[in-house]
Amino acid sequence: MSLKVAQRGKVDPFIVMDVLRAANARAQEGGDVLHLEVGQPGHGTPQAAREAAKQAIEQEQLGYTDALGLPALRQRIAASYKTLHGVDLDPERVMITSGSSAGFVIAFLTAFDPGDRVALAAPGYPAYRNILTALGLETVWLQTDMASRFQPTPELLDQVDGPLDGLILASPSNPAGTMVDEPGMRALVEACHARGIRLISDEIYHRIEFQGRGVSALELTDDAIVVNSFSKYYAMTGWRVGWLVLPPDMVRTAECLGQNLFISASAPSQYAALGALDAGDELETVVQSYRRNRDVLLSELPKAGIERFAPADGAFYIYADVGHLTEDSQAFCKRMLHETGVAATPGVDFDPFRGQRFVRFSFAGREDEVAEAAQRLRRWLAA
Amino acid sequence: MSLKVAQRGKVDPFIVMDVLRAANARAQEGGDVLHLEVGQPGHGTPQAAREAAKQAIEQEQLGYTDALGLPALRQRIAASYKTLHGVDLDPERVMITSGSSAGFVIAFLTAFDPGDRVALAAPGYPAYRNILTALGLETVWLQTDMASRFQPTPELLDQVDGPLDGLILASPSNPAGTMVDEPGMRALVEACHARGIRLISDEIYHRIEFQGRGVSALELTDDAIVVNSFSKYYAMTGWRVGWLVLPPDMVRTAECLGQNLFISASAPSQYAALGALDAGDELETVVQSYRRNRDVLLSELPKAGIERFAPADGAFYIYADVGHLTEDSQAFCKRMLHETGVAATPGVDFDPFRGQRFVRFSFAGREDEVAEAAQRLRRWLAA
Repeated sequence: MSLKVAQRGKVDPFIVMDVLRAANARAQEGGDVLHLEVGQPGHGTPQAAREAAKQAIEQEQLGYTDALGLPALRQRIAASYKTLHGVDLDPERVMITSGSSAGFVIAFLTAFDPGDRVALAAPGYPAYRNILTALGLETVWLQTDMASRFQPTPELLDQVDGPLDGLILASPSNPAGTMVDEPGMRALVEACHARGIRLISDEIYHRIEFQGRGVSALELTDDAIVVNSFSKYYAMTGWRVGWLVLPPDMVRTAECLGQNLFISASAPSQYAALGALDAGDELETVVQSYRRNRDVLLSELPKAGIERFAPADGAFYIYADVGHLTEDSQAFCKRMLHETGVAATPGVDFDPFRGQRFVRFSFAGREDEVAEAAQRLRRWLAA
Repeated sequence: MSLKVAQRGKVDPFIVMDVLRAANARAQEGGDVLHLEVGQPGHGTPQAAREAAKQAIEQEQLGYTDALGLPALRQRIAASYKTLHGVDLDPERVMITSGSSAGFVIAFLTAFDPGDRVALAAPGYPAYRNILTALGLETVWLQTDMASRFQPTPELLDQVDGPLDGLILASPSNPAGTMVDEPGMRALVEACHARGIRLISDEIYHRIEFQGRGVSALELTDDAIVVNSFSKYYAMTGWRVGWLVLPPDMVRTAECLGQNLFISASAPSQYAALGALDAGDELETVVQSYRRNRDVLLSELPKAGIERFAPADGAFYIYADVGHLTEDSQAFCKRMLHETGVAATPGVDFDPFRGQRFVRFSFAGREDEVAEAAQRLRRWLAA
C-alpha cells in the first residue's frame, strides 16, 4: 500500500530561497553577486557573543536547560524592557526559544485552537501564514497599502468578515520596514481588546530603527504575546535563539509545550546570547552601517526610476513598487540577477495578491556591495 | 473581553521535571542527591565536538544554514549508515533538525493530517503523545508488557480498533531499554506496509547497546522516517542537534516545513556535531561506563527486592516493576528521594495506565553515584 505525504505539510517554499540558489549558482560559475536578497546581517556574530560561547563550551556541562531557558538570560532580557521601554517585566514571563521561529510555533499553539482565525498584513513575513497553515489555523489577510503604511489598522480589522481570534503585528515590518507609532499601537491594542483578539507582536527588528522609536506592545498591555530574537539586531541568525514575553496566564502552558516540542533552546546559543547583551558599541556601529546603506538606496533608487516605496523606518528592507517596470516580479528579479548580478526578493514571497509588482531590497549587507548595487540598478534601468 | 489559552496547548508536563525540581530543592537545602532520574549523559560534550565548535565560532559566519542542514554533516551522517548498517543512503534524504524534538514535529507534520491516528507503545517517551496532541493527531496506545518486551508487535497492531496511519517504534526503548531484533523489525515493517501505516523509527539510543545490535528501519525499508540525534550516544543534549532520514518523496515537504517552522538548526551546533563524528574512542569509553552502571543495577536491584524489569538491552534505563512495593509510583519516588537521596522517575510519565507500579532508573550518570544509589536502595528496602 502506498503511503501519503500529509496535505497540511505542503506549505509554500520561500521564493527567496530559490533566488539564493540562483545567486549561488551564478557565483559558482564565476559571476559576481551583490546580495540584496537575504534577510540576515552581513556582520557576523558579535565578538562578545563569540567569547561567551567559547567560555561556556570550555566550562559548562551544556545539558538541557530549563524549558523556559537559562534563568540569567531571562533576567537580563526582562531587565532590558525597563531600559528600553520603561516596563517592569517579571522574568518569569520570558521564555527563551530556538529563534523566533520556534517562538511563533509556541505562541500559536498556546493561543489558538484548530480552525481559529488569525489576521496579518499582506505584505508580511511568509512563514506566518505557513506556520499557521501547518498548525491548522486560518490566515485572514489584511490588505494594507502605502496609505496604511503597510500596517494593520482598526479600520482594516473592522472590514474583516467573520470573527477573529488573533492578529500578528510586525513593527518594524518585514518586508515594508514601516513602524507603528505609539498612538497606532495603542489603537490596535484597544481594538484587539474590544474584539477579544489575541495580539502577537513581532518585535524582531526592534533597535534597527531610523525614524521614530520601536514601541513594544508590552508598554500598553500584558495580554499580547511578544516575539523577539537575537537574529537581527544582535546579528546571530545561525545561533537560533530568541524569546517570547508571555501573558502571565500562558507561561505554564507554553512551558509544557516547550518541554515536549523543543525541550530547550541550544545551551551554547543561550550563553552566546548572554554575551551579546554586552556587545553594545559593536552593534550600534552595525546599525549605523545599515543607516548609511539605507541612505544610499533612498537616494539612488529614485534616480533609477524606482520612486514608490514604503517609508523605511526600521529593519533593513526597502519594499519598492516596480509595477511600472513589470507585472511579474519573479521574472524581473531573475532578469536583474542575470543582467546586473544584483539579487533581490520578489514581492510574491510576502504578498500573494499584489506581490508581482513589488521587490524587496535588503540592505543588511556590506556598504560597498549596497553602493555598487545601487549604481548597477541605475545603469540597468536607464538602459 | 478576556482571552483564552488554547485547549490544545494544554499538554501534560513531564513529571520527571517535577522530580528534578524536588531533587534540586533538596540539593539547595544541603541534602545530597543521586541523580538517576534524568535521561541525559553525565559525560559532557565530547572534546572533538567542543574543539570543532570553537573553531567554527572563530572562523565561520554562522548565518542560517540550508533548512536541510550543513551539506558536510548530511554527507557524514549518510555515510555512517553504510558503516553501521550496510545501507547506501543518499545524503539528500538526511535533514538536520534542532534535536530529535524538532525532528518529530517535522516528521509528524510531513506524514500526518489532522485527526490521523498514530500508534505507540505504553510505556513510551511522553513527548510522543504530547506532540501528537498539540498537532491535532490521535494517540492509539499499544499495551505492551514484559511478554512483548514492552515493544509493539504485529499482533498488537491487529488488536487496534479502527484504522491506523502511523506507528512510532523506539528501539532501544525509553523507558524500557528493550530492543527490537532484525526479525522483529522485519515483521513490523511488513505489518506496516500491508496496512498502509507510516513507520516512525526513533533510533536515538542506537549505539548505546549492551545485548544485540540496534537495527535501523533503513535496513529494511525506504518508507520509514528515521529519527536520531546527537543527544544520547554523542552526549550533546544541550546542543539541540539531531537528524531525520526521510523517504525520498517526503524530503521537499519536510524542507519547506523546516524553512518555515525552524529555518535551520543552530549552525554552531551543526559544526560541533561534525566534530563529534570524530570522537570515537571517547564515546566508546562512555558506553563502557554505562555498561558498568547497568551491571551494578542488574546485580544490586534484585538484592533490594526489585526483580522484575525489562531486559535492559540498550539505552541507559532500567524500567522496574515496583508493584509489590507501591500502587503510587509518584509517592514512592518522592519518599525514596526524601529518605535516601536517590532521584528516579515514576512510571506515570511513560504509561498512563500501569505507570503507578513502575519506576525508571537512569544509569547515564557517574559510576560512583549509581553504585552508591544501589547500596542505599538496598538498605532502604531492607528496612
